[in-house]
Amino acid sequence: MKTAAFLGLGAMGVPMAAALARRAAQTGGRVLVWNRHMEKALAHAAEYGTQAATLQDTAQASVIFTCLPTSADVDEVIGQLEAHLNPGTVWVDCTSGHPDAARAQRARLLTHGVRFLDAPVSGGVNGAKAGNLTVMLGGPADEVEAVRGELAFAGTAVHVGDTGSGFAVKAVNNALLAVNLWATGEGLAVLGRGGVDLNAALQVINASSGRSNASENLIPARVLTREFPPTFGLGLLAKDTGIAMDLVDSVKGSAPVLAQVDALCRAASRMIGPNEDHTALLKLVEQMNEQEIR
Amino acid sequence: MKTAAFLGLGAMGVPMAAALARRAAQTGGRVLVWNRHMEKALAHAAEYGTQAATLQDTAQASVIFTCLPTSADVDEVIGQLEAHLNPGTVWVDCTSGHPDAARAQRARLLTHGVRFLDAPVSGGVNGAKAGNLTVMLGGPADEVEAVRGELAFAGTAVHVGDTGSGFAVKAVNNALLAVNLWATGEGLAVLGRGGVDLNAALQVINASSGRSNASENLIPARVLTREFPPTFGLGLLAKDTGIAMDLVDSVKGSAPVLAQVDALCRAASRMIGPNEDHTALLKLVEQMNEQEIR
Amino acid sequence: MKTAAFLGLGAMGVPMAAALARRAAQTGGRVLVWNRHMEKALAHAAEYGTQAATLQDTAQASVIFTCLPTSADVDEVIGQLEAHLNPGTVWVDCTSGHPDAARAQRARLLTHGVRFLDAPVSGGVNGAKAGNLTVMLGGPADEVEAVRGELAFAGTAVHVGDTGSGFAVKAVNNALLAVNLWATGEGLAVLGRGGVDLNAALQVINASSGRSNASENLIPARVLTREFPPTFGLGLLAKDTGIAMDLVDSVKGSAPVLAQVDALCRAASRMIGPNEDHTALLKLVEQMNEQEIR
Amino acid sequence: MKTAAFLGLGAMGVPMAAALARRAAQTGGRVLVWNRHMEKALAHAAEYGTQAATLQDTAQASVIFTCLPTSADVDEVIGQLEAHLNPGTVWVDCTSGHPDAARAQRARLLTHGVRFLDAPVSGGVNGAKAGNLTVMLGGPADEVEAVRGELAFAGTAVHVGDTGSGFAVKAVNNALLAVNLWATGEGLAVLGRGGVDLNAALQVINASSGRSNASENLIPARVLTREFPPTFGLGLLAKDTGIAMDLVDSVKGSAPVLAQVDALCRAASRMIGPNEDHTALLKLVEQMNEQEIR
Repeated sequence: MKTAAFLGLGAMGVPMAAALARRAAQTGGRVLVWNRHMEKALAHAAEYGTQAATLQDTAQASVIFTCLPTSADVDEVIGQLEAHLNPGTVWVDCTSGHPDAARAQRARLLTHGVRFLDAPVSGGVNGAKAGNLTVMLGGPADEVEAVRGELAFAGTAVHVGDTGSGFAVKAVNNALLAVNLWATGEGLAVLGRGGVDLNAALQVINASSGRSNASENLIPARVLTREFPPTFGLGLLAKDTGIAMDLVDSVKGSAPVLAQVDALCRAASRMIGPNEDHTALLKLVEQMNEQEIR
Repeated sequence: MKTAAFLGLGAMGVPMAAALARRAAQTGGRVLVWNRHMEKALAHAAEYGTQAATLQDTAQASVIFTCLPTSADVDEVIGQLEAHLNPGTVWVDCTSGHPDAARAQRARLLTHGVRFLDAPVSGGVNGAKAGNLTVMLGGPADEVEAVRGELAFAGTAVHVGDTGSGFAVKAVNNALLAVNLWATGEGLAVLGRGGVDLNAALQVINASSGRSNASENLIPARVLTREFPPTFGLGLLAKDTGIAMDLVDSVKGSAPVLAQVDALCRAASRMIGPNEDHTALLKLVEQMNEQEIR
Repeated sequence: MKTAAFLGLGAMGVPMAAALARRAAQTGGRVLVWNRHMEKALAHAAEYGTQAATLQDTAQASVIFTCLPTSADVDEVIGQLEAHLNPGTVWVDCTSGHPDAARAQRARLLTHGVRFLDAPVSGGVNGAKAGNLTVMLGGPADEVEAVRGELAFAGTAVHVGDTGSGFAVKAVNNALLAVNLWATGEGLAVLGRGGVDLNAALQVINASSGRSNASENLIPARVLTREFPPTFGLGLLAKDTGIAMDLVDSVKGSAPVLAQVDALCRAASRMIGPNEDHTALLKLVEQMNEQEIR
Repeated sequence: MKTAAFLGLGAMGVPMAAALARRAAQTGGRVLVWNRHMEKALAHAAEYGTQAATLQDTAQASVIFTCLPTSADVDEVIGQLEAHLNPGTVWVDCTSGHPDAARAQRARLLTHGVRFLDAPVSGGVNGAKAGNLTVMLGGPADEVEAVRGELAFAGTAVHVGDTGSGFAVKAVNNALLAVNLWATGEGLAVLGRGGVDLNAALQVINASSGRSNASENLIPARVLTREFPPTFGLGLLAKDTGIAMDLVDSVKGSAPVLAQVDALCRAASRMIGPNEDHTALLKLVEQMNEQEIR
C-alpha cells in the first residue's frame, strides 16, 4: 500500500492533504499527516480520513510533502527527520521557499538517497479545495515527471527548470502580485481623490489593457468591501518579494520597480501589520494619499 | 436624416468610423469622415460607405467624434471649426486626452451651445473592428445617457464621473498597463538570467496571482515572439503615463510606483524610440539586464 | 531718497528686510514693509527702523521685494497692487516660486512697465540674519546686473538663466536636499538596526564620499538631537519637490529618483504633518524601519 | 624589528603601502608587499623602500593589511595563507568588503589565533597619497584600539561597531555617494534641457542646501569636464550598492531609494561599462534625457 505524508497543516496544507486523501481512497493508499500542533493532525484525520502521525513516522512514506511558512522551517524539519529517511523517498516541498535553500536541501537529502523537488503552489485556499492549484516544479526533468501523478491537489503542474526554479518563479509571481496590487491601489487612490467613482473605474480598467488579477479579483473582493479577509499574510508577501530580490541579486539583475515595491511591502508589513491580509498593503497607499479605496 | 462626423482616421479611427457607418446603414443615417490627409477620408468612404468631408462640412453633424493623437490636436480642430458649429451639437472626444484640456474644451464649446464629453476608448484595433471597445465617459450624467446610443463602436460604455474623468481613468489604465508590463519584464529578465524557461514561467504566472493583461496577452504575443508589432506607440504610452502623473499632481497624491514607471517610460521612449510599439518598453529592461526576454 | 519695499515678513522675510534697512541706513534710503498681518509690519518697523506701509503705499518703491509662501500668493498681491504700480519699478520675487508663474507674472507686470525678476534664496534664517544668502536670479542679463546692488541680504547672487530659471534651480536644489536627506535617513536607519553607532557612522560618512549638507548639518543638528526645530516646513518642501517634477515634465525629462522622493515627501507631509520641520521627513523613514535615528 | 605586510597593490594599495613604509622608516620597521602580479610588488619596493615578498612570506608579519577588489578575493588569499599564519597576528582588511564575509573571515582566522578587523577606507587616491584616509573599523573595541597606531595611511580612524560594521558603513557611504551623484545628475540634466547654465546652477546649489560631495567635487571635476577619469570603477560602485542592499535585507529594512539607485547602478554598469569611472553613471542619466551634463 502506497503511503504519502503531508507535513504542515496551515490554511493551504489542510485542503491539499485532503486532496491527497481523496485520491488515496480511490487508489488504496494512505496519507499520514503531521503538524507542529498535534491536535490539528488529529482533527484532519477525523475530518478527511488521513492518519495523524509523529514526525518520525512520516519518514516511512514514499512521498513526503511539506508546506511550511519558510525554508527555515523546512530546514528544521529535515534536521529532525533525516536520520530516519529511507533511500528512494521523494520530498516535494510546496513551501514558498528560497531558491538557495532548495539547492542546499536537495544536496543534503541526496546524501540520504532522498530526492528533493521544489514545488510551490498558487491558487489560494479556494484552488486547494477544488484541487486545481498551479504547481511550479524545479528539479531534474525525469524526477519531475515521476512525481507528477502524485500531485492530487494540482490543476496544472509545470516543470520550470532546475532545482530552485520553482521557488524562483513563485517569488517572481508574488512580487508581480505585489506590484500590480500596489500600483492599482495608487491609481485608484488618486482617481478617488479626483472624484471618480471607483467601482466604475475598476469596471472599465477590467475591460481594458491595465487589468490584472489585482484589479479583477483582489481589490473588488477584499479592498472595496473593506473586508481584507486574512488568508495570505502581508508579512509572508514581504518575505516573498524579498526572495525575489535575492534572486535579482544572485543573477546581478536590475529590477528597479520590483525593488521599490519590495521596500514598500516591508514598510507596510511593519506599519500595517504582518498578520493582516496581503491586500491590506493598500492601507499604506491610503495613508499616503489620505484617501480610502472604496 | 441623422448625420454623425468622425474626425481622425488613424489606426483606431478607421474601424471606429466604420462601425458608425454600419449602424447608419441600418438606421438611415450617414457618417461624414475627415482626416488631415484627405486621401485617407476618400479611401474610407470608398471602403466603408462613409462620406469624405471638409472640416467645415463636418460642423453640420449632430454628433462629432474626434480621435486624435493628443488634446492639443483636438484644440487645433476646435479652433478651426468653432465658427461653424451649431447649438445642440454633441462633441464626443475619443482621444486619450488630458483631464484639464477636457474641462477647458467643454467650457469653450459651451459658449457655442455645443456639449463636450470625454470618451476615450480601450480595446485596441481588434476591439474597434469588432465594435466592442470599452468607452470611459466623463461629463454630466444626462448628457452621457443621451449619447450612449450613438456609440456604435462600444461593447461597454461606462459613465465614470464629471468632465475629465474619462480621460483620467484612461490615463490611469494606461499607466497600470505600463507598470504591469515593465514589472513583468523585470521578473522575466531575471528568471531568464537564472536559467528558467520563460514560456513555462509565463504559463504558471498566468495561472497564478501575478497575472495581468501584460503577462497573459502582450508579452506572449509581442515580446516572446520578438515581433513588437507597432500598433500603439511607446511615445504615446509615455504621454499617457505623463497625464496620469499630472492627475496625481492635481490631487496632491502620492504614487511612487506610477512616478517611477513614468520616468522609465519616458527614458525608453527616448532610448528605444517613440514610434516603436509600446511593448518595446521591455527592450530597455533587456538592456539593463543584458538578457533577452524570449 | 531711494525707497525699497519688502512684502512678506515670514521667518525669512524679517531678517531679509532688516538687511535692506541696515543698508538703507548707510545710503540714506528707506525700506517700507508690508505683511498680511499689519502688527508684524509694525513690530518690524519698531525693531529694525523700517516703515510699516499699506499694500498700496508700497507701490511707490523703486524696488519691490516679495517673499511669500507660494507663487499663488504673489499672484494675489500683484492683483491688488497692479493698478498702483509705476513704470520703471523692479519687482524682485524671492519666493520659492514656480517657473511657469514667473513667466506669466513677468508678462503681466510688463504691461505696467514693471520688470519682474525671479530671485529665490537659499541659506535659511541664519543666512538671512548674516546677510549672506545665496540668490538665484532669473531674467534678462542687463536687468539682473542692474538689481544686483540692491540685494543687501545676499552673500552670493548668481544669474542662472532666463525668467523662471531662478525658481527652477531653487526647486531642483530643494529636491536634491530632499533626496539627500531621505537617502541618508534610509542608510542610518538600516545601520542602526544593524547595531552600528550612528554618531560614529555620520562622522566617517562626513569625512567620506557620501557626505552632503543633510549628513553634515541637518541630521546631526536636527534629527539625532530629536529636536526637529520647525524652521522650513515639510509641506513647503513637498511643494518644492512638486515644482521640480513640473519642471521635469515641462522638458519631458526622465528623473526616476526625484520622482520617487517627491512622492515620498508628499506622503510624509500627509502622514507626519505639513507644519513639522522638513527634517521630520525622516520620521516616515523611521516608521518604515521601526528604528529611531539617534 | 616590527614587520607589516600589505597585500594588494591597486590604485589605493600603492599609496597606502607607501604610507606604511614612510612610517616604518622612522620607527625602524619594515613593510612587505605582495601583489598577484609580482612585478607590481618589485616596482613598489624599488620606488618606496618596501620589500617584495611571496604570499607565504607575508605570514611572518605581525600586522597583515589586505586591500583587494572584493571579499571573495580576500577569502582566496586567506585560503592560501592560513596554514602559515602565526597566532597573535592581526589582519586588517581595507577592502570594501561584505559584512557577512567579515564575520566568517574573523571566525575562520580566530581558529589560527589571528584577529581580523574590517577596516575599509574612504578618501580616494589623493587621500591615500596624503596619508589622511578615513578608516571605518569594525571589531572588538580593545583590538581596534590596539591597531589604531598602525594605520599610517589614516587621517581619521573611527570605531563604528562590531565585526562587519566597518564594511556596513562603507557600503552605506558608497550607496549615498551613488544616490547623491545620480540625483544631482537628474536635476542637472533637466535644468540643462530647460536652458539653465549648469555651471551657474552648480555654483548656487553648492552654496545652498542641496549640495553634496557629488555636486561640490565629483561633477565639476569629472563630469562637466567630460573627463570621467577612471579611478573608482562603475562596476565596483554597483558592487558596493549591492552590499548595502544585502545589509538592508539582513536587518529587514525598508530603503526604497537606495534600492532604486542600486538597480540603476547595476544597469549603468552593464550599459555604460563596469570599468568606466563611477561618475560615468551619469552617462545613463544623459541617455535617458538626451541631454549632456556640461
